[in-house]
Amino acid sequence: MATINDIGVAAAINIVTAFAFLLAFAIFRIQPVNDRVYFPKWYLKGLRSSSIQTGGFGSKFINLDFRSYIRFLNWMPEALKMPEPELVDHAGLDSVVYLRIYLLGLKIFFPIACVAFTTMVPVNWTNKGLDRLRHSNISFSDIDKLSLSNIPNGSPRFWMHLCVAYAITFWTCFILKREYQNIALMRLQFLANDQRRPNQFTVLVRNIPTDPHESICELVEHFFKVNHPDHYLTFQAVHDATKLSELVLTRKQMQNLLDYNINKHMRNLNNRPVIKMGFLGCFGEEVDGIKFYTSAVEGLTREISEEKQRLRTGTKSIVPAAFVSFKSRWGAAVCAQTQQTRNPTEWLTEWAAEPRDIYYDNLALPYVDLKIRRLIVGVAYFFLTFFFMIPIAFVQSLANIEGIEKAFPFLKPLIEVKLLKSIIQGFLPGIALKIFLLFLPRILMQMSKFEGFVSTSSLERRAASRFYMFQFINVFLGSIVTGTAFQQLNSFLNQSANDIPKTIGVSIPMKATFFITYIMVDGWAGVAGEILRLKPLIIYHLKNSFLVRTEKDREEATDPGTIGFNTGEPQIQLYFLLGLVYATVSPILLPFILVFFGLAYVVYRHQVINVYNQKYESAGKFWPDVHRRVVTALIVSQLLLMGLLSTKHASKSTPLLLVLPLLTIGFHIHCKCRYQPAFVTYPLQEAMIKDTLERTREPNLNLKEFLRDAYAHPEFRVGENYDQEMGLEKARSDKSPDLVATKRGSWRNTSLPSKHSYTNSP
Amino acid sequence: MATINDIGVAAAINIVTAFAFLLAFAIFRIQPVNDRVYFPKWYLKGLRSSSIQTGGFGSKFINLDFRSYIRFLNWMPEALKMPEPELVDHAGLDSVVYLRIYLLGLKIFFPIACVAFTTMVPVNWTNKGLDRLRHSNISFSDIDKLSLSNIPNGSPRFWMHLCVAYAITFWTCFILKREYQNIALMRLQFLANDQRRPNQFTVLVRNIPTDPHESICELVEHFFKVNHPDHYLTFQAVHDATKLSELVLTRKQMQNLLDYNINKHMRNLNNRPVIKMGFLGCFGEEVDGIKFYTSAVEGLTREISEEKQRLRTGTKSIVPAAFVSFKSRWGAAVCAQTQQTRNPTEWLTEWAAEPRDIYYDNLALPYVDLKIRRLIVGVAYFFLTFFFMIPIAFVQSLANIEGIEKAFPFLKPLIEVKLLKSIIQGFLPGIALKIFLLFLPRILMQMSKFEGFVSTSSLERRAASRFYMFQFINVFLGSIVTGTAFQQLNSFLNQSANDIPKTIGVSIPMKATFFITYIMVDGWAGVAGEILRLKPLIIYHLKNSFLVRTEKDREEATDPGTIGFNTGEPQIQLYFLLGLVYATVSPILLPFILVFFGLAYVVYRHQVINVYNQKYESAGKFWPDVHRRVVTALIVSQLLLMGLLSTKHASKSTPLLLVLPLLTIGFHIHCKCRYQPAFVTYPLQEAMIKDTLERTREPNLNLKEFLRDAYAHPEFRVGENYDQEMGLEKARSDKSPDLVATKRGSWRNTSLPSKHSYTNSP
Repeated sequence: MATINDIGVAAAINIVTAFAFLLAFAIFRIQPVNDRVYFPKWYLKGLRSSSIQTGGFGSKFINLDFRSYIRFLNWMPEALKMPEPELVDHAGLDSVVYLRIYLLGLKIFFPIACVAFTTMVPVNWTNKGLDRLRHSNISFSDIDKLSLSNIPNGSPRFWMHLCVAYAITFWTCFILKREYQNIALMRLQFLANDQRRPNQFTVLVRNIPTDPHESICELVEHFFKVNHPDHYLTFQAVHDATKLSELVLTRKQMQNLLDYNINKHMRNLNNRPVIKMGFLGCFGEEVDGIKFYTSAVEGLTREISEEKQRLRTGTKSIVPAAFVSFKSRWGAAVCAQTQQTRNPTEWLTEWAAEPRDIYYDNLALPYVDLKIRRLIVGVAYFFLTFFFMIPIAFVQSLANIEGIEKAFPFLKPLIEVKLLKSIIQGFLPGIALKIFLLFLPRILMQMSKFEGFVSTSSLERRAASRFYMFQFINVFLGSIVTGTAFQQLNSFLNQSANDIPKTIGVSIPMKATFFITYIMVDGWAGVAGEILRLKPLIIYHLKNSFLVRTEKDREEATDPGTIGFNTGEPQIQLYFLLGLVYATVSPILLPFILVFFGLAYVVYRHQVINVYNQKYESAGKFWPDVHRRVVTALIVSQLLLMGLLSTKHASKSTPLLLVLPLLTIGFHIHCKCRYQPAFVTYPLQEAMIKDTLERTREPNLNLKEFLRDAYAHPEFRVGENYDQEMGLEKARSDKSPDLVATKRGSWRNTSLPSKHSYTNSP
Repeated sequence: MATINDIGVAAAINIVTAFAFLLAFAIFRIQPVNDRVYFPKWYLKGLRSSSIQTGGFGSKFINLDFRSYIRFLNWMPEALKMPEPELVDHAGLDSVVYLRIYLLGLKIFFPIACVAFTTMVPVNWTNKGLDRLRHSNISFSDIDKLSLSNIPNGSPRFWMHLCVAYAITFWTCFILKREYQNIALMRLQFLANDQRRPNQFTVLVRNIPTDPHESICELVEHFFKVNHPDHYLTFQAVHDATKLSELVLTRKQMQNLLDYNINKHMRNLNNRPVIKMGFLGCFGEEVDGIKFYTSAVEGLTREISEEKQRLRTGTKSIVPAAFVSFKSRWGAAVCAQTQQTRNPTEWLTEWAAEPRDIYYDNLALPYVDLKIRRLIVGVAYFFLTFFFMIPIAFVQSLANIEGIEKAFPFLKPLIEVKLLKSIIQGFLPGIALKIFLLFLPRILMQMSKFEGFVSTSSLERRAASRFYMFQFINVFLGSIVTGTAFQQLNSFLNQSANDIPKTIGVSIPMKATFFITYIMVDGWAGVAGEILRLKPLIIYHLKNSFLVRTEKDREEATDPGTIGFNTGEPQIQLYFLLGLVYATVSPILLPFILVFFGLAYVVYRHQVINVYNQKYESAGKFWPDVHRRVVTALIVSQLLLMGLLSTKHASKSTPLLLVLPLLTIGFHIHCKCRYQPAFVTYPLQEAMIKDTLERTREPNLNLKEFLRDAYAHPEFRVGENYDQEMGLEKARSDKSPDLVATKRGSWRNTSLPSKHSYTNSP
């Protein structure tokens, strides 16, 4: 068991790390050369156009104004300054709602921590339950004296824990309900004030049945003209653009290589870059790099426009799905919420997501495929979740000092060094876990994609839900049970289902120190690392050196990133779970969690304002998931407390705890009925109000024109931008002509000295 | 344990009882005097007008044609003659779908029984597993030799049971799926061919919010005119008619008493009936009965029309619910399937049920009340289900011979009489259970009413679902576990949740004989008793003697009854459960179940054709419930077989059984997605087709007129009929003038000799 000293060392390490990150960030962010990494949001909004400020050459890259170094932490109050409504305009509702999850954590846990430290900590401390065990085999630390373990069996003091459990439940439910209400209202207001968007008029229709006599386009047209005669406006077919996507991707790669070669050549004008055609570019015939890639890009561009033409004119590539638009929001709301035909697996309608939110690859999946894919993913997820436990259990049992000493007795003298021991005990278990978890989100995202969701937002929600479940089983239960596995697993397997809460409940107080280190590593240092954006920083500078030639390239080289709902939210939920479970058992955990929530709130608010660029706007559609998971955590905490108390012979107070999960489930059902519809359906009244307003304001609106190509496949749109670019490039060549003009197809017209050398050379 | 002899005696008793019932029915039904009891459906359809046939006075009441007695069983083939489509026209889809549940039983169990008797019975019989136990304490009967208990532990013969379990699962799922498909199709065709009905155009709106500036009527009108401008037609307010209902009920009672007194007077014209005004009509002042009741009826009629006037003109009695009608089925389908406003607890819309199906008392309940009521009923149901077990357990332990002998040793010589012993063992446990269950449906129906459902059909479905759950816990589990409670309860309480299937599984083979007697008493004799209709027969003849004076009165005295979904369906489901559970364990049960399904099918088909008068038509909306319960029974049977086999040390085959519940759940989810929507939603395409057809056929239809008062409170309508009656009575007085003319308010105009004596006497 870790002692207070171990915790102290771990805390010191993590605090130092976190401060190092924050300091590095404070220095990096005021360097103009990093401006695009730390303030990309402003560039995207067009509020900053270039990092090149007044001053000499040096100040282009490095900040020489030393006064700004003194105020290095002033980003924190700045991050908090922007009021919420402005933040909604600036970054969208999704980001604001996401930030409110951290606030929710503060709101829930701050009063709980106050109550716990004024009532339970004294009650726990003034006992000698653990002192009596000092002579037995069970080891414990001073921290455990603050926990419920310190109270002797059958003590009437457990009534206090019962009361606090009730208080926590009521407080949490109260805050949750208020928050759900607020966010539902925010969402409805956001939707009501939102400007005209294609998705307000559009419904995604899937599983259009095939008909030997009619093409899919005709079918869709006829079906909606007949069944929604007064409201149907137009539709947009969905093309199978797999080949086009591949071509576009290849062209992009070729373009990058071309850019790299041109840059290389421009640094040393005498030396024309040469590439080898053989295996991995290491063998074979040598050719002129710039020429080769230029012709490749040209060829691909030709192929792309041919493929586009083929898709546009042909009907073979049309998949049995379509975006059907209506004359009014009312008509779309009706179509999205009703069943169209007898067969509930055909003509499935649902609200279309925003065009940029659509995940086109899955639109064509037929109904049966979806079911089979769901089954396959379910089984795969089961195995992933349960077989992932084995390595974690192994590493964690190693990270236990006694375990290491037993496994590798020759390491004993090394381990017994005081500092090293502390590091191993305080640091390793958390790190081991964290590394394992780094690989996971991508796998889960791929699973969701395979499962067939049709919008990025739903993909992320699904992946988040799977990630949470995974963390619950492997991090939370896994750490609690396998950590003491060698003592308990045997008895655990032979116990009944009813005894599982007991077994887990008993282990919970023993694992408090482990979770404290976990919170410090994952929460404190992790969040501080997030603000440093080390990975985007490095990638940006690499790209900047090798690929960037224009401001536009530089813009593309910046990856502002997104909040990352599928990884971030489950992480927060783990803290909710830990907080609620340990609030009654070992309240010493709560301050650590509060620090996490506070720091993360400030950091993410800063990032949302200055960095992240959300890929889509779902208007906070994920909140029901957040709410459900916090409620689940609450119920788990109640069950585990029940299990723990029942082993403490507190038989008088334990039955009263049974009421709590029932109350909480009732609360959840109530909230679900009352607030969830705001996140799922679009009420007809709202639709009608917006329609009427619009009709009054813009009686001559050409909606058909507005909706045209709104839902075209992104590759079509990318291509168009690209083609436009090629025309527009010349017009923009006033700023840095040497760089801009060489860009892509139009570089031939530039006045570079070596121009002729690579356009006319053989 | 009951032996084969006991079963034989029980079977004999029950077969004799069933035959006695059938014989009595055969004789009663051909007596003209009972014609209205056994053929009320034909009277209601207007195809038989009077039971009085040609012949003398005697043949009015008794069938003197002795040839008809010879053909006394010919109702059976007749019941099967009517083809299904005709039956749908004759009795509605609900009845036909209900009959198909029995057919489903035959389809599932006949092949299973064949397979079981050709494979498992020989396999079980040719073992000596039980013979080895003959010297131990466990008692068993010869019937057990046919069951799985007879196979010694760890025998490879259990592979046979595994295969049969797989075969049963696949066969049952196959039949279930085909049936679901058929019935979904039948429902859709029925709805498509259905004539114009008010409910096709009408949506029930509940929880209309109150507004200080507008009345509810104005609110509804404005809301739907704004939000469904092209489709809204009209609406019908709902009145709180509690007082009116009471008045109408009182008038009916008074009218009955008046009729009784007039009849009494007419039998003996010299003796005017006299009633006492005091307590219970036994003390106090004497007054002339006819005069008193006449004035009472008159007074009440006046009060009723005043109350009606008050309801019609005033707005205070209007509750926040309304029936909103649309110009087209499309408009109604849209409104029923969409959310109207931001607040999902206001302006709740759903398809209106048929006018005669509406349960008006619950329309006014606000949202919060509904939730609270649901909670209260849930708790009450829990206690009802779990505390009802105590008396059953007591009675059943008594019904065990050894139990009785132990409790009342002085009864020993009496009980040991062979025949009596057989009766007690074979008959009592079933009867005891049956009596308990007689009281239940009413309680459950009241619970559903309190819970706030708004249509009779949904009330019945809910009550059925509760009744099934009750039977599952108390009859099925209760009988299995408490029957052997004294041996097993103790060990049971100390076992884990995982071991429950084992414990129950082990008891199952031992209870086969109990369930055989239960099937005979409840199934065979019960069904035969149903066709006899003893209760309606007696009530009809009582009413006929005391209250009936006109043909119309006689019509009202007949109670054709209904199928009684809330009691009948759970009963059938119990047989499905027993059949599936015992199919692999003790196949000897299957023939008994098959006989039940066959007999019940014939009997209920006869009743549906000749007797029952359904109160509403839900177009088979209950089928998803039926399907779900059979699937549940299948899963239970698989779990219990798994539990049983795992105690038999058949460790090689048991894990393979784990696949079955998963497959079955998957099957259920598939069926739910694929077929359930047909029972819940109304596709827009269907609505549009019907609308278009109607518009072509009847371009000048005045829909508003058609819908006017369709959803008026039934008391309004009853009253109108009554008022009309009073006017129409004279016109109908050609048939039996002496009876008709004295009816109700108009009796004063008759030519009865004593007329002046009770209109003019003081």
